[in-house]
Amino acid sequence: MNKEIERKFLVKDDSWKNLGEAVHYKQGYLSNDPERTVRVRIAGEKGFLTVKGKSTNDGLTRLEWEKELSVEEISPLFSLCLPGIIEKNRTKIQIGSHTFEVDEFFGQNDGLILAEVELRSESESFEIPDWLGEEVTGDKRYYNSYLAQHPFSTW
Amino acid sequence: MNKEIERKFLVKDDSWKNLGEAVHYKQGYLSNDPERTVRVRIAGEKGFLTVKGKSTNDGLTRLEWEKELSVEEISPLFSLCLPGIIEKNRTKIQIGSHTFEVDEFFGQNDGLILAEVELRSESESFEIPDWLGEEVTGDKRYYNSYLAQHPFSTW
Repeated sequence: MNKEIERKFLVKDDSWKNLGEAVHYKQGYLSNDPERTVRVRIAGEKGFLTVKGKSTNDGLTRLEWEKELSVEEISPLFSLCLPGIIEKNRTKIQIGSHTFEVDEFFGQNDGLILAEVELRSESESFEIPDWLGEEVTGDKRYYNSYLAQHPFSTW
Repeated sequence: MNKEIERKFLVKDDSWKNLGEAVHYKQGYLSNDPERTVRVRIAGEKGFLTVKGKSTNDGLTRLEWEKELSVEEISPLFSLCLPGIIEKNRTKIQIGSHTFEVDEFFGQNDGLILAEVELRSESESFEIPDWLGEEVTGDKRYYNSYLAQHPFSTW
């Protein structure tokens, strides 16, 4: 079990788009209980089953358990997921010593773009690229499990 | 994904006890939503993560997805489970061409003994041993996911 320490941001413009290669993600949820979220994900050619615990009060840290599975193994689970499957492209972008993950959403979440950076400690500093917008860390509306049930287009 | 076809019974007496070897089971739930139950289980020396779909109206059939994991891999997930961990001994008993699984519960479900038989079709017949009691197939109170939240001792 790992601790996941992340900060999440909106994105100002499209200037990040040539900085990395987009990979298609499809994901759904078997539980969207914030204390034990169960996520089914296909990321490119890989499958992952991920369980996330409750976040700390500041929203920065969550316990995370993950198992890699083949796409064939994990695909049948989508039929058991809660309504609301998320599709997005994820682009990993190296900025200084950190990797930003920029998620461009499709379908019912079209128009939403989020950037996340993973940190080794809650106080760790990192370089802020020009295209990074308002911080939304801890805002539960931007959890993918929330977006699956309450898509951006309905806000 | 398999279809699980099962019939479930109470047990009349202890005469089944010398018919097989008991294996200790510990299990908890990441979701007890009947349409997407997510179960964390250690059975003897093996770990399993299992997702079960909604049962049919007669309670006989459920979609089931299962992944075997090592005990080391699965153990951390118990800390994220819903309150209510189930502990029981399971004894597999061959009766004619069928295997009965007899579950003797401990802790908050002490005193409850259930027997299940898995069938290849909903109409398949099977030999009924003397110790088999009242059928409780489809009675959701006897789902382990229900017993985890509403233990037998509180009925």
